[in-house]
Formats: sequence, C-alpha cells, structure tokens
Amino acid sequence: MTVPGAGPARAPLRIGVAGLGTVGVGVLRLLEANAELIAARAGRPIVIAAVAARDRARERGIDLAGLRWHEDACGLATDPAIDVVVELIGGADGAARQVVEAALAAGRPVVTANKALIAIHGAALAAIAERCGVPLCFEAAVAGGIPVIKAVREGLAADRLTRVGGILNGTCNYILTAMRESGRDFATILAEAQALGYAEADPSTDIDGIDAAHKLAILAALAFGRPVDFGSVHVEGIRAIGALDIAFAQELGYRIKLLGIARLTEAGVEARVHPCLVPQTAPIALVEGVFNAVFAEGDFVGRIMLEGRGAGAGPTASAVVADLIDIARGTTVPVWGANAEQLSQVVSVPIGERLGDYYLRLHVLDRPGVIAEIAAILRDSGVSLKSMLQHAAPDDVAGGDAPDAVPIVLVTHQTREVAMRRALDLIAALDVVVEPPAMIRIEAG
Amino acid sequence: MTVPGAGPARAPLRIGVAGLGTVGVGVLRLLEANAELIAARAGRPIVIAAVAARDRARERGIDLAGLRWHEDACGLATDPAIDVVVELIGGADGAARQVVEAALAAGRPVVTANKALIAIHGAALAAIAERCGVPLCFEAAVAGGIPVIKAVREGLAADRLTRVGGILNGTCNYILTAMRESGRDFATILAEAQALGYAEADPSTDIDGIDAAHKLAILAALAFGRPVDFGSVHVEGIRAIGALDIAFAQELGYRIKLLGIARLTEAGVEARVHPCLVPQTAPIALVEGVFNAVFAEGDFVGRIMLEGRGAGAGPTASAVVADLIDIARGTTVPVWGANAEQLSQVVSVPIGERLGDYYLRLHVLDRPGVIAEIAAILRDSGVSLKSMLQHAAPDDVAGGDAPDAVPIVLVTHQTREVAMRRALDLIAALDVVVEPPAMIRIEAG
Repeated sequence: MTVPGAGPARAPLRIGVAGLGTVGVGVLRLLEANAELIAARAGRPIVIAAVAARDRARERGIDLAGLRWHEDACGLATDPAIDVVVELIGGADGAARQVVEAALAAGRPVVTANKALIAIHGAALAAIAERCGVPLCFEAAVAGGIPVIKAVREGLAADRLTRVGGILNGTCNYILTAMRESGRDFATILAEAQALGYAEADPSTDIDGIDAAHKLAILAALAFGRPVDFGSVHVEGIRAIGALDIAFAQELGYRIKLLGIARLTEAGVEARVHPCLVPQTAPIALVEGVFNAVFAEGDFVGRIMLEGRGAGAGPTASAVVADLIDIARGTTVPVWGANAEQLSQVVSVPIGERLGDYYLRLHVLDRPGVIAEIAAILRDSGVSLKSMLQHAAPDDVAGGDAPDAVPIVLVTHQTREVAMRRALDLIAALDVVVEPPAMIRIEAG
Repeated sequence: MTVPGAGPARAPLRIGVAGLGTVGVGVLRLLEANAELIAARAGRPIVIAAVAARDRARERGIDLAGLRWHEDACGLATDPAIDVVVELIGGADGAARQVVEAALAAGRPVVTANKALIAIHGAALAAIAERCGVPLCFEAAVAGGIPVIKAVREGLAADRLTRVGGILNGTCNYILTAMRESGRDFATILAEAQALGYAEADPSTDIDGIDAAHKLAILAALAFGRPVDFGSVHVEGIRAIGALDIAFAQELGYRIKLLGIARLTEAGVEARVHPCLVPQTAPIALVEGVFNAVFAEGDFVGRIMLEGRGAGAGPTASAVVADLIDIARGTTVPVWGANAEQLSQVVSVPIGERLGDYYLRLHVLDRPGVIAEIAAILRDSGVSLKSMLQHAAPDDVAGGDAPDAVPIVLVTHQTREVAMRRALDLIAALDVVVEPPAMIRIEAG
C-alpha cells in the first residue's frame, strides 16, 4: 500500500497480539475499523500479522482467517513475521511476563495494557528495553483511554511534579457512587455490580485496592522520576465502607472516594490507596460511576486533571493503538521518562507519617461518660477534634448484640497517622466500644 | 556537560527565545529552575543561547548576561548559535510570523505559544515545516499547560473523533463565574477583572470570542485531520450576556459558559464559539473561574475531558518547555497529525445548520395578547416551545423608556438555527418587543 505524502511507501507495521480476550478483540476491531485513518496518522499501515491464544475454537465474533496462530505466546514473541508484540494476556507473571521479556530481548517493541506486570516488574523490563534499544509502551495500563501516561511523562516533562493520583478504579467508583445514590450497603451494590458486569466474579483485585495501587505505582514512578516500586504503596480497599459512613460523609459535606495519592515531600515519596473523604465540591468528588480521573500537580503547570472511561474494550484498545501509532512514527521516549541511571533514588515514606485530618466512626454503648473517656484518649495522644456528630441510632444500624449502641462520628484536626492509630487502638480496647472503629482519611481532593 | 546514562555525552539543545514578555521570562525561569530534571528527561541539557526583544534596558527580573541579544527577531531565526527558535512575540502577522517562517525555512525547529498565528497561518507554516523536515510545535497555543494538543494528536490518534471543544478562554470563564456568584453585570465584572489582571486593557480578543476561536480552529484541525481553517469558525463573545440571563439560566437548571464546539457530522465540520446554557450538573459546568477544560469524543475512547489553568506564565512555559523536551528527544509527529496530502477535505457547515435547543429572552410590553403574538410566530416558523418563564419585572431591569416592560424567557425544543433566526427577526420587529431579543444556544456540555 502506498502512503502518499510520506515519501517513499513505507512498509506496514506488523503486529502480533498475545491474548484474545475482550481487549485483544477490541484492538483487532479498532485496527480494522479505523485502518485508513490510522495509516495516515502513523505514516504507514498497521496490520495484524499473528495472534496467540490457547483456544483456537472459541467464537470471538471476529474474522481471524489468514492470521498466523500461536498456541504458545512465547512463539509469537520471536515470530519473524511480526515487528511489534502487543501483550494482552494479563497477570504479573506467567505467560504475560515471559512473552514481554522474550520480545524485548529479541529487539521487538512491546505494547501492553498489563498494569500488574508494569507495576511489579516494570524496572526490570525497562532495563531489558533500554539494553536492547526498543520501546516498551503501556498507556493502556493506567486509566484506559485517557492518555495519562503521555500527559505525565511527556506533557508535563518540564515540571517538577509534587502530587499525582486520582480515581484509578472504575469498579470501586461505581460501587461508592451507587451506595451514595441508593443508600444501600456494600454487599448489595457489589452483587448488583457483578450482575451488570462492572465487577468481576472474584472482585478482590478491584475492591481491595490492588488494581488502583498498580496504577498509582506506575504514575508515581513517572511523576517523580524514580524506579517503579509497587511494594512501597500502602493499600486499603473499600470493603469496610458502610452505608452509615456514606451518609455521615454526606452530612459533613464530603463524598467517599477510593483515591490513589502519591506525594513528593521533603521526607520522600508517599504513595497510598485508600478510601478518602473529599469535599463534595472538589472536582474529583464529581467524577462518578465507572469514570476515572487523574490529577497531577507541578511547580509551573499548577494542577491539571484528566477524566474519562478507565476501562472497557474500546477505551483500552484506543490506548493500545495510540502506542502502536507512536511506534510506527518512530517516537522514542525512555520507558520511565528518563534512562535508568538518571532516575532518582528518593526514599519511600511509610503511611504512619501521613499528616492530615481523619474521620472516625465508633459504635459505643449509650452510657454517661463514654464521650469523656474517648475525648481523654484523643487528648492524651495529641489528637485535636474539629467536630463531632451523634444521632439517635437508626433501627437498622444498632447491632443485635448491643441494642443500646449508637454511632458517633469524630472529625480531627491535622494529625500524624501514627498518633491517630495509637489513639484508635486505645479507643478500640474500651469496653463501651462495641465494634472496631472505622477510620477514613480526609483529603482536599 | 555529560549526561550519564544517555550513552555518549549529547550536545546541549541551544534555544533562542523571541519575545521577552511574561511568557518569555517564564520560559527562561523554568529552564533555569528545573535544568537538571529537564536534562535527564530530554537526554541532554536545554540551554538559552540567545534572545530577541526590542527594549534591552527594560527590567525583567532575570539575569540576561551572557546571552546573545537580537533587536530584530529575524536575526535570531538564522543565528548559527541556536538550534531551536521559541516564538513568544504574539500576533498573527508581523514579527512573529516572519521569525517563524524564517526559522522553518532555515531548517530550525520552532516552538510557539501563538494561537492566532497557528490558527490563521498554520496550514502554510506546516507546509514549510514539512518541506524543510523540521518540527513546528504549539502545545502552549491551546489551554496553556494542559497537554491537549498531545492528547488529541497523539493520545487519541487511534480514534475517529466526532466532537472536540471546551472552555478555551479563562478571561470569559472568570467573568461568567463572577457574574453568577455576585449577581452583578458584565461591565462591572469586566472592570474588576481588568483591575485584577485577569482581563487585558483592551479585552476584545478575549471577550468577543476570538481567542477561543483561534484555539478551537486548532483543535478541530487536529481532531478531524483537516487543514486548519479559522475563517470557518462562527464566533460570538459574551458582551451581550446580562445578569438577568445568568439568573434565568440558574433558575432553569443551567450555567452559562462560553464554549468552543467542533463537531464532525455527515454534513461536514461544524465549528463555533458562543455562549451556551449547559446543565449545571454537566462536568464542564463545574469548571469555574480562570480554569480551562477541553473535551474530546471518539468512537473507541468515548469522552475524555482535561482541565487546568489555560493561561499565565507558569502553565504556558510548562507547555513550551515540554515541546522543547520532545524536540531534544527527537520526537517527530506531523504538525497536524498527518502529512498535508493525507488531511481530509471535509467541508465546513454554516452555523445556520445547527440543530439544538435555544434559550430566548425577550423584553415585552406587559399587555394582553403579547404572548399569543409571539407564540404564533414561533409556531409558523416551526419552532416548538419546551417551557416559558415570566416574572414581575425587578426594578433594576425594566428600562426607563418602557417602564411597563417585562422579561420573558422561552426555551425551545430542538430547532434548526435558520428557522430560529427567522422567527427571532419577526419577533424583534414587533412593536411590543422593546429590546433586541437575546438568543443563547443550549448544549449538553
């Protein structure tokens, strides 16, 4: 095929796709649907030459005739008929890791949507890519079709970034939004989300915050120019969020969101995923349902925020093919924004060092002196209270074991997390406290 | 200077900056403040080698010692001591255009923040850049530090985009936000914005929508892959927006925003800048004050939105230097996303073809039969009404000439703009209509 205007006709870029699940099929569909437009933008056609998947007989709703087929993905990695490997198998290890390593070592550019792989093995893979001089692209690994990798690594390359993060998991955001809108509890909404296909049969990677933590680790590495370090991300999910917390948050002027937040402070890099109370007027509080949002703050640019669909076959395929177009154009950017030797060695700061406000929800027996006892513990731990809420117990809240228990909500002034936790341990041990206390961090958004 | 990890030491990229206003000084400050980080990301240092500005004596608060100085910007364009020209003079013609043309013709990459230049002469400049094989970058021309050019041209390169636009002028958004928050009128808020430095002494480029139209023309060209065509953008500003319209909009559940909107329809490309009523829950309605927001909608990615500061020395310098880092890295992307021969020749659609809802505000004499007369005209023009609002005239609204005039607000169902305008001409000609009617288009956001 001749590409007018691109000088001499340029050879097509031949793609091998490993993994033909929803996203893999989406990539094939997109490359077919927008072939002409993609060839114009890439300066050459991008064509599927080979695929790898175990089950050849499965009906996928697309025509795979004429494509080379590998049952073993590693065969694809070194297939001489392809120029680029697209890894869409998933999982941090196993076949996904093997095919990516093999392809890079063979001098093949790799595009992947695999956040676990990049968050956990990204530094080692970048070393192979650098050594072999080939691109390793993963725009689809964070926030689906929203080009956040490109924005942070290239668009904000001039800035010293100090904060990056956002709503990184659509399943959690869907559940929290639905809980708020319906007033129903976590388990009910999760079951509904599973029925609708917004949550997996085994939802733990999403709802326990692990998926968001993979993405945050990647964003933090790019933003602060240091090797990706998934192990240093503090992770909490949303299982413990009760309908009561959603209601109290609303009464206090907040919404509950699962945020990933990475900050560069004088002490080092703080990276954490956990539910947060954010003011209900903050831009991020208004990002609802399955939508994702990523913010970044830099010394010259100020704060920017990007939002859109963070998952699904279409958005993910859009990001994968944008990476392929970059490769076809010959764009080369260091995997982590700078070569490995130039990445910073700034240390990680443990969660105990967090300084901020806290929301505490306690279930206490409705007896004289209880508040005084709790207030004394907080005072002795150096935790200063901003406000307190107490309502008569609604019928469906008071536990059967403790019919006279009432919920109390406390909001603190700025407190170091270690002090907060020490105080909570003492409070939890009180006889009058009948349930483990809930603690949710308050963030500006 | 040796750049570790980049293989053999790479020569610094030597920059010449034409124009030392606020943004020019911002670029110099940024290159100095983040020099080390920029060198790591760019793979080589980026250094200022020369500047061009007329007044050498002016105090700019930065050290210019040791820099080559050109009083004539065109001398800078061909100065052998520089590798890249940064044009920050401004204006579609004159020195800005000359220096960019001269630099490109001399094979020098150009970075500019000049939206008027790119919107009006962007096709011709791209032709020179293509012929001479040099990059022409203008990330700073649209939405300041928010990397929207990169997002649309590269991040969404795989998508067929059907809609792009947003809040593209911070001055107008500041004025409209302040009008809503204070209830005061346009002239008062404009004067205040001028005093605060949010509006220019001559504010017409901003408030008449021209600046937003420059940016929309650029976004539309990138999104739809066709030559930039400022002349086809329909432009209206915000001078005619009254405090009364802001109040009525709020009562109807809307906010008024100056939006730039470009759509690709079966008939061609529709591009227009005008005030809009947007539902107050739409994400774009919540972007307030000097902030900008850009949305894009594609066939696979769905809708994404980017927001942040669209102007100011810091954000603009951030975008200029990000472009310089791309050039230092050797990234080359066609100026308009594809080579000139591959751009589409899709036609422009005139504003009369717009199909949508309309808000109309009339001042009519408070007499029997007036509503019936207006309703008959709308019916005969094929305009169907959705709702009507009428209040007793507030004291400060009724004109001195027509003490018994009252405002009436009509909201239409979907109507073709030509029909709407025909009806409005007839309504305006009625004796009982004492002021030219106000018409504001309603958009989903």
